[in-house]
Amino acid sequence: MINFETIIKNRRSANNFVENVSISKQELNEIFEEVKLAPSAFNLQHTHYLAVQDHALKEKVREAAFGQYKVQSSSAVIIVLGDKRAYQNVGKIYEGLHMLGVLNDIQYEAIVQEIIQLHENRGIVFQRDEAIRNASLSAMLFMLAAKNKGWDTCPMIGFDQEKMRELLSIDDNLEPVLMITIGKEKVESRKPRGYRKPIGEFVTYL
Amino acid sequence: MINFETIIKNRRSANNFVENVSISKQELNEIFEEVKLAPSAFNLQHTHYLAVQDHALKEKVREAAFGQYKVQSSSAVIIVLGDKRAYQNVGKIYEGLHMLGVLNDIQYEAIVQEIIQLHENRGIVFQRDEAIRNASLSAMLFMLAAKNKGWDTCPMIGFDQEKMRELLSIDDNLEPVLMITIGKEKVESRKPRGYRKPIGEFVTYL
Repeated sequence: MINFETIIKNRRSANNFVENVSISKQELNEIFEEVKLAPSAFNLQHTHYLAVQDHALKEKVREAAFGQYKVQSSSAVIIVLGDKRAYQNVGKIYEGLHMLGVLNDIQYEAIVQEIIQLHENRGIVFQRDEAIRNASLSAMLFMLAAKNKGWDTCPMIGFDQEKMRELLSIDDNLEPVLMITIGKEKVESRKPRGYRKPIGEFVTYL
Repeated sequence: MINFETIIKNRRSANNFVENVSISKQELNEIFEEVKLAPSAFNLQHTHYLAVQDHALKEKVREAAFGQYKVQSSSAVIIVLGDKRAYQNVGKIYEGLHMLGVLNDIQYEAIVQEIIQLHENRGIVFQRDEAIRNASLSAMLFMLAAKNKGWDTCPMIGFDQEKMRELLSIDDNLEPVLMITIGKEKVESRKPRGYRKPIGEFVTYL
């Protein structure tokens, strides 16, 4: 049992990983069990994860990520996708509360319509923003949950979106938001923690 | 000392808050001390927080948020902003590592130029995406750090961007990404936790 502050302080973006460490599907699933609890707007659960464990495929992912070495040394690469059309699943998401009677027929129908209307009115830029925003909330939880289970991560945006889309057959509705490498940090490669702004520079009280 | 799993499981988006509970600047600062450690692309620290404690101003924020009741009952409202021009501060961010000698003059200059070039080449859509992505990563950490200190939160996107911008004099470079209400959850108003997709529906192993 590790306390929360320690997780926050010890989570650092890994500069490199110890090679030939594998992570099992079960170990990843234990992380995803916690990631499940991430909040999302209207509980639409926009985030989809591709977990690349296969060695040969991971090498191709590395090519699409401009050859970055830490993709190779990582135990797995996780592609975090945000679903721009997540709102279209609203009926399914609220079905449970409807069936439990927490929402009656009229309330259920009203919520479904309201959420669809809101997304249609605000249009495709908003739908894509929502995909990025909600997938990022989820990705932060992934990195902390991973650290809590003894794994190090590094969030990365340096990859060729179109190549990645083609390589992993990513549907047009899904926006690649982040790539996260996961493994055991190669501590010898660690650099000093980057400068952090003092609170006075990033918080304004009103 | 609360363990990490408990924080994750107990963090829920509050449906409403107990009225007349105040949160001090010091209590908020303790949360921000941990939020500081959030990762950001190239360590650019895109996120800026506006913490609205003043009662009268909070009422105006509520108006810009379509009158939502939980803004009124919250102890404070936090507006999470992402800086679209965060990359322009890269020189300052890396100055410390330069001065410490971790980066020599040539390396420092190369990193600064590379990061500026990358953002200029990828253009304004990418710069805005980065603001949303990185502010969302930070916001998730805020909500967990708040829970760890005994505070409940609710992330909200239902507000009028333009009204909020005008009301709080938000600079054009800053993108309003999320609004977070913080307070003590009114437990009687709690609804059953929303349905969560099973892992098989949001994770694909490759």
